[in-house]
Amino acid sequence: MQKTNPGRFFEDYELGMVIDHAVPRTVSGGERAMYHALYPMRHALYSSDEFARASGLPSSPLDDLAAFHIVFGKTVPDVSLNAVANLGYAEGRWLKPVYAGDTLRASSEVIGLKQNSNGKTGVVYVRSRGYNQHDECVLDYKRWVMLRKADLDAPAPDTVIPDLKSALNPQDLVVPEGLDFSTYDFTLSGEPHRMSDYEIGETIDHVDGVTIEEAEHMMATRLWQNTSKVHFDVTARPEGRLIYGGHVISMARALSFNGLANAQMIVGLNAGAHANPCLAGQTVRAWSEVLDKAETKAPGVGAIRLRLVATKGGAPFELKGETGKYNPDVLLDLDYWALMPL
Amino acid sequence: MQKTNPGRFFEDYELGMVIDHAVPRTVSGGERAMYHALYPMRHALYSSDEFARASGLPSSPLDDLAAFHIVFGKTVPDVSLNAVANLGYAEGRWLKPVYAGDTLRASSEVIGLKQNSNGKTGVVYVRSRGYNQHDECVLDYKRWVMLRKADLDAPAPDTVIPDLKSALNPQDLVVPEGLDFSTYDFTLSGEPHRMSDYEIGETIDHVDGVTIEEAEHMMATRLWQNTSKVHFDVTARPEGRLIYGGHVISMARALSFNGLANAQMIVGLNAGAHANPCLAGQTVRAWSEVLDKAETKAPGVGAIRLRLVATKGGAPFELKGETGKYNPDVLLDLDYWALMPL
Amino acid sequence: MQKTNPGRFFEDYELGMVIDHAVPRTVSGGERAMYHALYPMRHALYSSDEFARASGLPSSPLDDLAAFHIVFGKTVPDVSLNAVANLGYAEGRWLKPVYAGDTLRASSEVIGLKQNSNGKTGVVYVRSRGYNQHDECVLDYKRWVMLRKADLDAPAPDTVIPDLKSALNPQDLVVPEGLDFSTYDFTLSGEPHRMSDYEIGETIDHVDGVTIEEAEHMMATRLWQNTSKVHFDVTARPEGRLIYGGHVISMARALSFNGLANAQMIVGLNAGAHANPCLAGQTVRAWSEVLDKAETKAPGVGAIRLRLVATKGGAPFELKGETGKYNPDVLLDLDYWALMPL
Repeated sequence: MQKTNPGRFFEDYELGMVIDHAVPRTVSGGERAMYHALYPMRHALYSSDEFARASGLPSSPLDDLAAFHIVFGKTVPDVSLNAVANLGYAEGRWLKPVYAGDTLRASSEVIGLKQNSNGKTGVVYVRSRGYNQHDECVLDYKRWVMLRKADLDAPAPDTVIPDLKSALNPQDLVVPEGLDFSTYDFTLSGEPHRMSDYEIGETIDHVDGVTIEEAEHMMATRLWQNTSKVHFDVTARPEGRLIYGGHVISMARALSFNGLANAQMIVGLNAGAHANPCLAGQTVRAWSEVLDKAETKAPGVGAIRLRLVATKGGAPFELKGETGKYNPDVLLDLDYWALMPL
Repeated sequence: MQKTNPGRFFEDYELGMVIDHAVPRTVSGGERAMYHALYPMRHALYSSDEFARASGLPSSPLDDLAAFHIVFGKTVPDVSLNAVANLGYAEGRWLKPVYAGDTLRASSEVIGLKQNSNGKTGVVYVRSRGYNQHDECVLDYKRWVMLRKADLDAPAPDTVIPDLKSALNPQDLVVPEGLDFSTYDFTLSGEPHRMSDYEIGETIDHVDGVTIEEAEHMMATRLWQNTSKVHFDVTARPEGRLIYGGHVISMARALSFNGLANAQMIVGLNAGAHANPCLAGQTVRAWSEVLDKAETKAPGVGAIRLRLVATKGGAPFELKGETGKYNPDVLLDLDYWALMPL
Repeated sequence: MQKTNPGRFFEDYELGMVIDHAVPRTVSGGERAMYHALYPMRHALYSSDEFARASGLPSSPLDDLAAFHIVFGKTVPDVSLNAVANLGYAEGRWLKPVYAGDTLRASSEVIGLKQNSNGKTGVVYVRSRGYNQHDECVLDYKRWVMLRKADLDAPAPDTVIPDLKSALNPQDLVVPEGLDFSTYDFTLSGEPHRMSDYEIGETIDHVDGVTIEEAEHMMATRLWQNTSKVHFDVTARPEGRLIYGGHVISMARALSFNGLANAQMIVGLNAGAHANPCLAGQTVRAWSEVLDKAETKAPGVGAIRLRLVATKGGAPFELKGETGKYNPDVLLDLDYWALMPL
């Protein structure tokens, strides 16, 4: 019997199948320190226990994207080890903050299947959930990947494409219990801009750039226990190691502090595209666009919908060419909801 | 008086000499996070406090190899600063898990001496022990190194070669107090294979590879406070920085998850050879061979003896040429006992 | 309204202005582990809770230089984002150790201003203080930077140059409450040399070297939330990424263990010059000179004043040429007070 995990292929998935992912993970101050060493993170709520307490939380949570990466990493051996492409995300919701001492596990449910017309590949839609040690769901998101068939003779499944929202509604968002921005300290947070200072349609060039190193993206990706070999083995692809898309997400989010320092908590992931591959040596920059704004029921807490674009050069605010294709310099196009003082 | 440590030379050792090593070390969740960022570790017992508790331990311990590296690192300034070669290991036993908050120190006893016939070098055998803050021995192992003589006129000591077991017997192994695999969760651990699924003589190719970076091996080696200059100073050797052999051990062990996910705790080190030097840019792969199996007195807990081989290329399962010499692609040949659900 | 921080220019400062810096930071065992992975730190008081307790402290503090880097990093967006040069430090005092769980914030007061005769730049002197969550000042230092004017027509301020001590007097130094070296363990600390073993004027070559990697200095600099773009963006300067001067300080201090293992706590910063830029690929070495010695009121605790020089090659103990200019191989010339067993 083969002992190693060959990963699943398209024909190995059935609609409704639930996969409990392996290797639960306890987080500590160590993961936070690593996260802040890997990305230029400065959002005060994730940097200071005191700031978090002043905002109604028991202490500073693990960065929302770090929680996402941990849950995502757990799904990789079961969902995307043989992925041809990571096609999209939708309806991602952070339901509870993750704190030092919490243990995360994950499971995924197959919610859609579509064999491609070439008969060689297909698209699998999964809904993945991360849970803490109290069996509380902390994160819930959908993604779809293109997978190869190992057995081309396997019959095509019935096509089921899930009905996915193009963006979460503000009322879908879950504000962490106790969160209160009514006495928010704009000096300590780093910028004076509250939600009312941002206009829908406004764009922000985050100015700074970070040149990416091999050691860093591998350390990050391993920390999330993501086992995809293309990130680690220089012999796996002719172009060299492909950087985990989540590394670019976290880098861009951290860069966005400069202009969006008060977009503190990420609570919704509407959509995301890894537009072009990222390789070591490239210098990542970021810009944002305000897509929407909404109130929440929590005191002083608004929700802002942002497009976050990471590039490896080129002018800011240019996303796609006339053909509708992403410009070659665009690495990431992410659509998310964050919580911000009103 | 010279203030810096020139390291000891062969003639500086006497049989029975005990050296208390410097710089005790307190570990925290930070060391665990760093370890998981440096190596693709996924063994559940070392990743999740909850999994560890379900296995009868108070929380997730520090990785056994991290504990080894810390103890080993303490011995370097006193034992191997002037080593020509690190020749071997024997009778290594992990006696107690190390937990966050523990403070480790180490001491070594000289248990053998043999001057080489060239009169210029000699072999020193030491028994090194690591202790926690309760003066409990957590690790006990023997290793021997070849050292230069600084004073070629120093008389040769009486030759004493310690009687070392070629491998520990299963009854020599210490199972951590309370360990219980009778309700082991094979879904959370990542693989369904229990000890009875492995055959003596079975070989496993662990498939994945990791390309090594300078920044990573230096961070790892510094974390263990290992001061050997060849790992850090590019000018020390014409080939560039030599990677700490323990970095290769940890990398290979982490890669072995894929096929040996349930070989959870390392409790015995029978032998180890750093067959060829490892340099940055090389891609490390690993394969294992099942050498032996045994029961223990702990509920549901078996012991499996494994050969773990790290390579920088070449076909798996090839170790030595006709001359009995290691193939040039082999980096490490390690023989250890691990605990696994029966 | 521009949302991103353009940084302040010379004309934006006024004498007496107080700037409260953003983004407080809670530290944990994670920051300690990262610090020990980035630098070959071995000072026992910062490595072992047990050693720290035996010295009268509640546990092992965060390295003094790590505390300095955190406070310094907070000042960067408000003080030195547009700095042409970081000119000097004076009167730096560590007033309280920083422990895991502490949250640090910082503020700076403008204590001097001098427009340069070219009318295009000026020097700003600031006194920066770091505070913990109890509003206790943990660090207090002065530095001066040269800044560009954005508006060349802005009037020159009255010139005020603060009166700065060329070195702190021993009685200015604050010994942490409870510190007691009367039962100091010189075996565990790593070297037998007490303060009486050092002569004023004595020089020590710390022997070892570390070759610097891009990934490491960026991780370090990000960990301190230092946002200066020249450290991260390879396109910012023709020579490539400039390494944060604090990275060189920490590297040199760590290397100085070999010969100064018992210079445990840094309590005073008299002066410091970043003599030449440091770039990745360079191998950093260090040497020290004993400048002064003094007693303190704490049992068994002496204060030693040291010059710490980091180089990228060249012979030790050579600092300046005949013209009084630093030799091109000198990276750092630091003058500090440390506490050492008498």
